[in-house]
Formats: sequence, C-alpha cells, structure tokens
Amino acid sequence: MSTTDNAFAIGVDLGGTTVKSGLVSPTGEIKYHNKFDSKSEQGPDTTIEQIALSIQDVLDHGNGGAVIGIGIGAPGVVDNNGYVKAPPNLARWDAIPLARKLQKQFGGVSINVENDANCAAIAESKFGAGKEYSDFLFIIWGTGIGGGIILNRKLYRGPSGGAGEVGHISIDYDGPLCGCGARGCVEAYIGQKYLSQRTVEKVKAQPSSLILKLVGGDYGKIEPVYISKAAEAGDELARSILTEAGTLLGVAIGAVMNTMDLRVSVLGGGVSAAGDLVTNAVQDSVRAHVLKPLRDDIRVIQSRLGNNAGILGAAGLVL
Amino acid sequence: MSTTDNAFAIGVDLGGTTVKSGLVSPTGEIKYHNKFDSKSEQGPDTTIEQIALSIQDVLDHGNGGAVIGIGIGAPGVVDNNGYVKAPPNLARWDAIPLARKLQKQFGGVSINVENDANCAAIAESKFGAGKEYSDFLFIIWGTGIGGGIILNRKLYRGPSGGAGEVGHISIDYDGPLCGCGARGCVEAYIGQKYLSQRTVEKVKAQPSSLILKLVGGDYGKIEPVYISKAAEAGDELARSILTEAGTLLGVAIGAVMNTMDLRVSVLGGGVSAAGDLVTNAVQDSVRAHVLKPLRDDIRVIQSRLGNNAGILGAAGLVL
Repeated sequence: MSTTDNAFAIGVDLGGTTVKSGLVSPTGEIKYHNKFDSKSEQGPDTTIEQIALSIQDVLDHGNGGAVIGIGIGAPGVVDNNGYVKAPPNLARWDAIPLARKLQKQFGGVSINVENDANCAAIAESKFGAGKEYSDFLFIIWGTGIGGGIILNRKLYRGPSGGAGEVGHISIDYDGPLCGCGARGCVEAYIGQKYLSQRTVEKVKAQPSSLILKLVGGDYGKIEPVYISKAAEAGDELARSILTEAGTLLGVAIGAVMNTMDLRVSVLGGGVSAAGDLVTNAVQDSVRAHVLKPLRDDIRVIQSRLGNNAGILGAAGLVL
Repeated sequence: MSTTDNAFAIGVDLGGTTVKSGLVSPTGEIKYHNKFDSKSEQGPDTTIEQIALSIQDVLDHGNGGAVIGIGIGAPGVVDNNGYVKAPPNLARWDAIPLARKLQKQFGGVSINVENDANCAAIAESKFGAGKEYSDFLFIIWGTGIGGGIILNRKLYRGPSGGAGEVGHISIDYDGPLCGCGARGCVEAYIGQKYLSQRTVEKVKAQPSSLILKLVGGDYGKIEPVYISKAAEAGDELARSILTEAGTLLGVAIGAVMNTMDLRVSVLGGGVSAAGDLVTNAVQDSVRAHVLKPLRDDIRVIQSRLGNNAGILGAAGLVL
C-alpha cells in the first residue's frame, strides 16, 4: 500500500440548512460522512463553530489515516483571498475569511475554500460525468441556477473568483425581472421558485394535470419535484413545462458555448434529476443556439454524483 | 540600439476585399504598409498568391531590419492546426492550411495565423485601449459582431480556437432569425445589415429624420455611417437608434461578464466609432445586466487603433 492510498481529504459542504463533511479517498470514495445543522440564522460565528464540529467529527473517525487537507464549498462568491462574500442563505455573512477563521483550530492542515457550484464542477471533473472531458460547463439547477467552468481539467475561476454565474445570463432583454435586478435572467424563468410560480399559472389553466393531484389540490405546494413526478407518469402538461424549462436553459448554455468554445455541459441539481426528458430538451436547445462548427459535438449529460457532489468537490480542492 | 529594436514583425490583415500588410516594430509602430486586392472571388489559390505578393512587398521595403515572424489575421475560425475554416467573405475556403501554404515561399520565417477578431483583441492588449487591463472582452462591431477574449494579457482561444463568438449570444430566445439559424442573436439586431434594415423601418415611420436627408431620400442607402452622422448632428431618431443598439449589445456583453468574471470591454469596428453616445449606452446596459459585485467596476471603452488594428494584431501574434 503506497502512502498516497492513505492520504485522505476532508470535504465540507456548507449550506444554509446543513453542514456536511466527509472523509474522501484520492479516488473519490467517501469513507465516512456526517451532517450538522448549520444554524445559519444565528450568524457567522455560530455557523463557523458548527463547521468546526463537523470537521472534528470526521477527524475523530479518520482511523489514523493522514489528512492532507480540508476543502470547503460555500455559497456566495469566494474571492482570491478566501473571503466568502454575501452567500444568499447565510445570515450576516458580508465578507468572512473562512479558512483563516478555522485555521487556528486545525493548525497543521491546509484549508481551501471555494464557491459550492465550482466545487461541484470539480467533483464532476475528478469523479463524475465530466471525468472524460477536459473542458465543460457544469450547471447546478436548483433554487437558483449556478455554474462552474472546467478548462483543461482545472477550474476556471476568472480574474476575481466570480466566474460561472450563468443563471444571470439574460435570455430575453425585455423579460421578467430577476431577483438580481436585471431582466430576463434564465434563473428568473427556471430557478425553483420562478419555475413553480410559472407552473401554478399553467396548472390553473389546466387543473386536470396530475401535478395538482400530487400536491393534494394545494397550489402553494407546487414545486419541481412534483412536476418531475407528474412528467414521469406521462402527464402532458408536466412534460411540456419541463421541456420548455430545458429549452430556456439551453439558450443560456449556448451563449457560454459560443463565447468559450465549449461543447459539453453536465447538469446537476434537483430539477435536472428529472432525467432524459429535461436533458434532451437542454441538448436540443443548445445545439440550436450554437454556431455550426460546434453543433454536432454538443453533449448535455446528467450528473450522477447526486447529494455527494458537494463533499466530493470540496475534497477535490485539496486532493 | 539593441538587436530587438531591429526585430520587426510583418502583420497581414486578410479580408474579403483587401489584403493589407505592414512592417511593425515591437512598440507597435507601423514602419511601412501596403494594400492589395484579395481577389477573393477567384478562390483560395489566387488569394494566397495575393497574400504572398503583399508580404514580399513588405520584405522588399524592410530596409534590412530583421523580420522575426509573420502574423496573419483571417476571417473565419482558425483551428489549432492553423486551418482557416469557412471564412464568411472568402469564396471556396472550406479549410485551408494557410501558414503551411505560405511557408514554402517564406521558408526561414515563422508564420502564425489567427482569427481576425482575436488579432484585433491582441492589438488592443499590446498597443491599444486594453493595454492597462489584463483581462477584457474585445468586440468588433461591423458587418457582424465578433469578439476576442484576453485573459491575463493572453488571448483565450478556447479548446479548439473558436472562442469569442459573442455575436451569436441570443438576447431573446423568441427573437428574429439570425443568418446562423438561431433566434435572437445580438448580431441579428445590430449587425450592419440588420441594423440598417431596422433603421429603414423606423425612418419610414419618421421620414423627417436627418438620416433620410443624408442618403438623399434613398432608403436603400441607409447604413450605420449615416445613422452616426445624423446622431452627431443631434437627430433624435438617430440618437435613439444608436442608444437602443448599444443597449442590446450590452445585454450580450453582460452575459460574457457574468460567465467569465470580466469587467472591461473594448469596442472596435465602424459602428462603435460613433462615439460616447454608443459607448455610454453599452456601458449602462452591461452594468444593468451583471451581478452586483461586478457592477461598479464595469468599463466599456472605445478602441483608438482604427483601421490599423488588423495589421497590429497580426504582428502581435509573433512579437
């Protein structure tokens, strides 16, 4: 057994609700993992304590293997100095030097922090569907639409670490207002909240849809998971809603492909898990929106890492 | 005088109508330049002969200075093997290994070929408005909308050399059909032909506009240069047309900024020469379409290299 077989990394997936940490082998096996409440409503100091507890718990279960580093995936922009800036679901985090704050407690081990969508892109590149592609765009389709760009098997962070904000590509300059203040951002069409709202309107016009049965007639409960379930069961309205959403996402992905000369996109996040219907709609739309030399090579594929992508990608920062 | 002061490059700007070549110093001075007919209607062999004549003419006027290399800016995609692929205004150029074809005649000197918009971006980075920025998006706004991306003072070509096709970013998924086959490409709104067509419709509804006077009442002659002239003279319709065009361009540039984490865009090409009115409209629009952390740093500036950008950028390939 070589020494590197023992060289594990700790990956930390920080979210608004939970902190998840895992002990990850160089080949992407999660040997142990846990889940802590992030207590984000209590502000950064408490959340940082929760992160520390979660990391310590992994160290305590490490069975003596060497830990070569700790990677943390955090929401928000992570700048070149390791400051986590204005993460949407963490209260009062204006700009927190997260690695530095944790370094005291875990003195001997290097700590790296990166944006969570970027971490998930790294996970796809090292361990997932992106493994066989040296260049691709990763998309996380959930509450919002995030992205991470892999060039030559490395993360492209951009000059200040803010790259990959593909959810705020406008696909209609005269479109609906997005939470960010701009018009027609693709997120304002297909981010979870917006997609749910749009679906409510459509179900009201077509209340025979299975979607309404699945939420027990309660319009307020309509969200992507039920649209997906209804689509799987063959509901025509649900299928058309997901196809349209995939088509709209493809317009934004096409913009990235034309700009950066990319061909492959890996889709992750809850909505994309709806499967081939969505993946194919996105792929058809990307093909229709890129220049001819790219068209035949366009591939849109689904992530297979699921909930582990966060831990794996964070560990990938140091592996 | 050091030896490098004598180390000139030859820059060749290949277009559908003319081949222009120049002898360029390391500081971007054009010591001599010429212009030949590209005879593009006679096919690639004839055009390649014209390029060779143009290069030889520069060599003949070189006054004995050492030529360290020849750079050629060509329309179309230039792939990683130096093949010029399907340039829009050159007849029957499916895929021509341009450097290799010229190498026989200019054996001792290295020849590099790059896409013309990418060359112009290099010119801005080395000698022009982009000199003080390590990362920016260059836009050429003429017949079409092209782009070149400079990252860390180097050209970003993308995995296969096709990067920067920002003219085909869709700014309305349900917009007008572009020549490329997609809907809503920004080029289909503001490329020279499309902008002229849109202006004709507007002038018909408002024939008192100075634009119509400038073309002697001939709608068929309406093109951007007259819109710019009318705008300069204060014509309200012309000003609103250019402001709208700049605003639309800003939507596409915003998509690139959000994706690649860029802040600066340099505008070149005939239409952008209209001046502050256009530049400011683009800048306001980019600011409105990027995420907050980028907003204050957004700068849209005008190229000052003019017609020499092609020769300078091509020379920049080897300098």
